[in-house]
Amino acid sequence: MRPLDGNEDAPMTTQIKQVEVFLFENPSAETPKGFRDYFGTEVTERTEMLAKIAEVYHRYGFDPLESSAVETVEALGKFLPDVDRPNEGVFAWQEEAEGERPGDWLALRYDLTAPLARVYAQHRNDLPTPYRRFAMGPVWRNEKPGPGRFRQFYQCDADTVGTGNVAADAEVCAMLADTLEAVGIPRGDYVVRVNNRKVLNGVLESVRSLVPERVTDNTDWDELKVGILRTIDKFDKVGRSGVVELLTTGRKDNSGAYIDGVGLPEYCVEPVMDFLTAKSEIQSVTFDRLRNAVGTSTVGAEGIRELEQIAALLAAQGYGPDRIVIDPSVVRGLGYYTGPVFEAELTFEIVDEKGRKRCFGSVAGGGRYDDLVKRFTGQEVPATGVSIGVDRLLAALRAKGRIGGSVSGPVVVTVMDRDRMADYQAMVSELRSAGIRAEVYLGNPKNFGNQLKYADKRESPVAVIEGADEKARGVVQIKDLALGARLAAEVETNEEWKAQPAQMEIARGDLVTEVAKMIARTNVYHVNEEVLDI
Amino acid sequence: MRPLDGNEDAPMTTQIKQVEVFLFENPSAETPKGFRDYFGTEVTERTEMLAKIAEVYHRYGFDPLESSAVETVEALGKFLPDVDRPNEGVFAWQEEAEGERPGDWLALRYDLTAPLARVYAQHRNDLPTPYRRFAMGPVWRNEKPGPGRFRQFYQCDADTVGTGNVAADAEVCAMLADTLEAVGIPRGDYVVRVNNRKVLNGVLESVRSLVPERVTDNTDWDELKVGILRTIDKFDKVGRSGVVELLTTGRKDNSGAYIDGVGLPEYCVEPVMDFLTAKSEIQSVTFDRLRNAVGTSTVGAEGIRELEQIAALLAAQGYGPDRIVIDPSVVRGLGYYTGPVFEAELTFEIVDEKGRKRCFGSVAGGGRYDDLVKRFTGQEVPATGVSIGVDRLLAALRAKGRIGGSVSGPVVVTVMDRDRMADYQAMVSELRSAGIRAEVYLGNPKNFGNQLKYADKRESPVAVIEGADEKARGVVQIKDLALGARLAAEVETNEEWKAQPAQMEIARGDLVTEVAKMIARTNVYHVNEEVLDI
Repeated sequence: MRPLDGNEDAPMTTQIKQVEVFLFENPSAETPKGFRDYFGTEVTERTEMLAKIAEVYHRYGFDPLESSAVETVEALGKFLPDVDRPNEGVFAWQEEAEGERPGDWLALRYDLTAPLARVYAQHRNDLPTPYRRFAMGPVWRNEKPGPGRFRQFYQCDADTVGTGNVAADAEVCAMLADTLEAVGIPRGDYVVRVNNRKVLNGVLESVRSLVPERVTDNTDWDELKVGILRTIDKFDKVGRSGVVELLTTGRKDNSGAYIDGVGLPEYCVEPVMDFLTAKSEIQSVTFDRLRNAVGTSTVGAEGIRELEQIAALLAAQGYGPDRIVIDPSVVRGLGYYTGPVFEAELTFEIVDEKGRKRCFGSVAGGGRYDDLVKRFTGQEVPATGVSIGVDRLLAALRAKGRIGGSVSGPVVVTVMDRDRMADYQAMVSELRSAGIRAEVYLGNPKNFGNQLKYADKRESPVAVIEGADEKARGVVQIKDLALGARLAAEVETNEEWKAQPAQMEIARGDLVTEVAKMIARTNVYHVNEEVLDI
Repeated sequence: MRPLDGNEDAPMTTQIKQVEVFLFENPSAETPKGFRDYFGTEVTERTEMLAKIAEVYHRYGFDPLESSAVETVEALGKFLPDVDRPNEGVFAWQEEAEGERPGDWLALRYDLTAPLARVYAQHRNDLPTPYRRFAMGPVWRNEKPGPGRFRQFYQCDADTVGTGNVAADAEVCAMLADTLEAVGIPRGDYVVRVNNRKVLNGVLESVRSLVPERVTDNTDWDELKVGILRTIDKFDKVGRSGVVELLTTGRKDNSGAYIDGVGLPEYCVEPVMDFLTAKSEIQSVTFDRLRNAVGTSTVGAEGIRELEQIAALLAAQGYGPDRIVIDPSVVRGLGYYTGPVFEAELTFEIVDEKGRKRCFGSVAGGGRYDDLVKRFTGQEVPATGVSIGVDRLLAALRAKGRIGGSVSGPVVVTVMDRDRMADYQAMVSELRSAGIRAEVYLGNPKNFGNQLKYADKRESPVAVIEGADEKARGVVQIKDLALGARLAAEVETNEEWKAQPAQMEIARGDLVTEVAKMIARTNVYHVNEEVLDI
């Protein structure tokens, strides 16, 4: 907090100098638009989840990497990965010039893949090949914030760089399944779906062979292809019939607006529809249907072979279709990836803000991309990986009651006699030594009611009270605040309240044991309450 | 990695537009100047240390807070806390204008205290008072990078906001001692020193009463005070006689340059020297000396009373002077803080880069500052807290061999027959299920030597080998790579190497048990090696 005044020679950015005038005039205490703070259990629960994920990633041989939050704009490139949000920028600024040389442009990373590309290109001689790495941390997007959409959020990625072997893809899928179970999503509540961009490429070749010349005369094939890819991307939203309409003559959307079609004759649409709807309960049937969809395409056949290999590798490790399934209807990211594509979906229903039941949906996605470091070195380096949507996964775990619920507030030792602070400190010292979260009330102790209000705000399970009388008799009062709150809701009069059994007198020597018992009781109640709620 | 091309209407910052031209011309794969990447155990060890610290902070009733990395420049203020590095700036940029309204200036946080001030001012109605919070995460400084000095680094803070009670200061000191022990600094290897700015204020009053009018006629007292404070700050470097010289006539420094003195007559210097050298083995003697130094100053007496209270509270909890000591020679931060000041020092010797033995020194510091949110609300809100130098503490633990040393690389299952990938995957699956870190070699398996080189680079403890012959006989080879490396250093010829016992044949069914044994053996060796090294 030492002011920079008196250090006028300090090298500060020109930007800062321009705004100096604002600095001391009633600054408003607000996060910048689109940013937020995370408090208490919000932080703890995320930290704990990330630790569980890291444990699985590490066990799979992935090494942690923490790159800097700041990259040169040059190294970062002008790419953004998320197809759903194309119009995003980055937060960028220019370094001060050094003599003649203009300052570099720096920016906050917008994902963890672009930094991986830079790291791999920079350190490739020192890193093992293949290089398995995981990274977790915030990324920043300079986009318009919206409800629930922030400009800083967490990503959690694992990638294998430097191998084209589909065993790497299979491994990432298995790891994703294990990770979901490790954080508390039970088997049956999730499924990892696998598709392959190469199969789609085969389908496109198959379509091309059907397209009559009069169509390609008017429209360039590359343009048609872009139209088909865009349409496939909408399969999730518009469904089977919608895709057929959009690939052919066009479609009226929900708002009544008419969306032009791609202009394919209806019989050319068949391979696309065969592809999107190929999934069968019987895996061999899925593959047969895909073979039908790609026709004679070489790349299509290669794509199917890759999916078969992935399925076989996973089966050998005991990952059946109850956990990981070949599903060509997975279209998200197909435009971005170059080989296998994966998506993890939670299959249970939740009740949304509007009281409607809906499937929770996707919490992770990934795939193979083979041009990771090409920008830097010219070399094609194959890579495959997955990114977990940390905040969505946390929301899912909260919705299912898999995290939270147990007591997290500290025991509060109240101050009855401010001259005996040392006694109260000794109590919390004992409690802490036994691993019990505890604190002395450090505000103004005059008003005892305020101390209990404070304990409430802290979600404290137990308050400890030792007045002069208790001190003299070698006892303390302990108060079950959770039980007290429940009783308060049920009793009417002050007399009843006073008669309630939430407070008990114990020997000072039994403090740790009795407080521990009271907390355990509260935790049991919490658990029961949850069980009843579900 | 989806290019933004074709989204020309995307709202991007003007900055980005200016640099578009550079983007595709051979970007260089480098971190920006002053930034670095952290790999593998560097990340794990920090994460583990932070988790241990968080556990202690949490037990003391502190709640985690994660504020955004980005703040408005307005909220951040133009302050920097670290007296040793005054000429620092921040990384800042301007948001795009919205119509008439110019965009806000945003910046990366330069510490965790300025955001705490903003958070407390913003959320004060919802937060408990007092508010105990801890925060850990990167901060950014726009300063000239130097060797070992980075523009992004970790801080780890705990603060209690909203109480002037010295019990809060005592608590922070106790917590700091517990934290150091929790991360692996044994009792005796550290000491937390406590001083008080108020005592220094008393000393200054005492000096003032001695200063003859002819001195204050020529020099303003406030100027003299600044000179005395600056000099005290140098006590660490110039020692007792240096301080006396600097307070009086001046001093020749090591480079031969003459530093002007503050100009006090020698007899006026006495209270300052009494203060700085007041520490005695007997605490009551320390306090007597301090009383002597502050003379009749009220604030000085108050400061001494606070230190006595802190000492008494700590003694009641069993923290003796072997862990926490009242030491008026602690001067770092005295200019910044308004009340008690703490510093944690590691007392063991290490050997520095130049082979010289030296004390490891300070790893944490803190104190009381009472103007935390005043800028925002006008209110004085007292606060006290501590900041741990995460990187220095990690360096200390490494220097003492308290972290690292055990095996962290994965077991590598080699690929002898690329068609049997499923067999190899099944092996790693078994190992992982038993909690053993393991992976299949996913590079090109043609050259077996490359697979072993890869395993070496991964610091793999064990390689697993199963060729067609082994498969047929139901066995696998496991190779102790750590032992292999040691033997290789000791043997001369290839024959001896081949004869060495680092490789053994085991039944396929015993894979998990035998690999676990081999890793355990390696870990024991590592530990012994360390014990011998120290």
